[in-house]
Amino acid sequence: MDFSSKLLEQAVAEMSQLPGVGKRTALRLVLHLLKQPADQTTQLSEALVNLRTKIKLCNNCHNISDTELCEICSNKNRIREIVCVVEDIRDVMAIENTSQYRGLYHVLGGKISPMDGIGPSQLTIKSLIEKVKVGEIEEIIFALSSTLEGDTTNFYIFKQLGGLKVKTSTIARGISVGDELEYADEVTLGRSITNRIPFEGSLKN
Amino acid sequence: MDFSSKLLEQAVAEMSQLPGVGKRTALRLVLHLLKQPADQTTQLSEALVNLRTKIKLCNNCHNISDTELCEICSNKNRIREIVCVVEDIRDVMAIENTSQYRGLYHVLGGKISPMDGIGPSQLTIKSLIEKVKVGEIEEIIFALSSTLEGDTTNFYIFKQLGGLKVKTSTIARGISVGDELEYADEVTLGRSITNRIPFEGSLKN
Repeated sequence: MDFSSKLLEQAVAEMSQLPGVGKRTALRLVLHLLKQPADQTTQLSEALVNLRTKIKLCNNCHNISDTELCEICSNKNRIREIVCVVEDIRDVMAIENTSQYRGLYHVLGGKISPMDGIGPSQLTIKSLIEKVKVGEIEEIIFALSSTLEGDTTNFYIFKQLGGLKVKTSTIARGISVGDELEYADEVTLGRSITNRIPFEGSLKN
Repeated sequence: MDFSSKLLEQAVAEMSQLPGVGKRTALRLVLHLLKQPADQTTQLSEALVNLRTKIKLCNNCHNISDTELCEICSNKNRIREIVCVVEDIRDVMAIENTSQYRGLYHVLGGKISPMDGIGPSQLTIKSLIEKVKVGEIEEIIFALSSTLEGDTTNFYIFKQLGGLKVKTSTIARGISVGDELEYADEVTLGRSITNRIPFEGSLKN
């Protein structure tokens, strides 16, 4: 693209570095900002820089937080003996939205993925193992996404936990509530039969 | 969404004010920036603020420009007697990419659209008429998009030009080069038959 303005060109170049934002979309977004009051651009810029420079990771669970200890970890009403292992803050938000979980979290910051150059040392696995070694955690719930990388990460952590006295579990995989059986994929349907639960147990929720 | 961090919440709120960016996409973009070096966020913010505060509109054609007179208007090799009327900078870029036009532009800044509260006074129509009155412009080419608003705007300008000695033309509408006739819409195909051109003329490009 041939821009009539270097300023415009730079703004579009920076904007199009965001994932899923091509040059055309970047230009559309930047032209939109030009039509809005200057305040909007200032506020967007300040919010981004503030976030990037001031954000902290919780000392205990490594979730994104404004304080040294996040709201969940510092909440006295949460069950401190159960820890749910997730990939990132989006999973924490998704589980919190269900209002079905009262334990703490441990945010790994990703999944083991040799293809993307991510090994166990880039994740917060060591810190998890050390928390378990202290001896106050009774159960670890694995809640990573059900992919090759997710399964690999689960298994790696499981092996590292070997010998330590802690219960491990994984979230149930099965047919989504409201879904028709005939449209479910075979693997999911197969697992949901293998891992069937007592009927009385299903009435709890 | 329930964020664990006010900083994160603010950044997502600002980002999701961009057109076509929902809360989920905004969160994905912001989390991406957090994983990148802080430089990237700083550069994005600076580029946006620089653009918004320093950008100028060309005194002659109203296109976005870093200088008082844009590169096209200050280019001695352009034909100053022909002016192509377009909606915004994207149309200028599209026409420039064809390398088929050697005249100048006049950027309206939008189309007349009562539904969006945009009347003739918000556009640069008055300045166009005044340029024509000076008497140096020989031809005005209308190149607005072929919509109700585009046609209305063309017609409004055409009426305003009434009495002034200037030729007016509009870009040709027809079947796209490479398109199959059977898939063309009726209106376009109809117009392309009505506005057929001498066969010798079509060999020029």
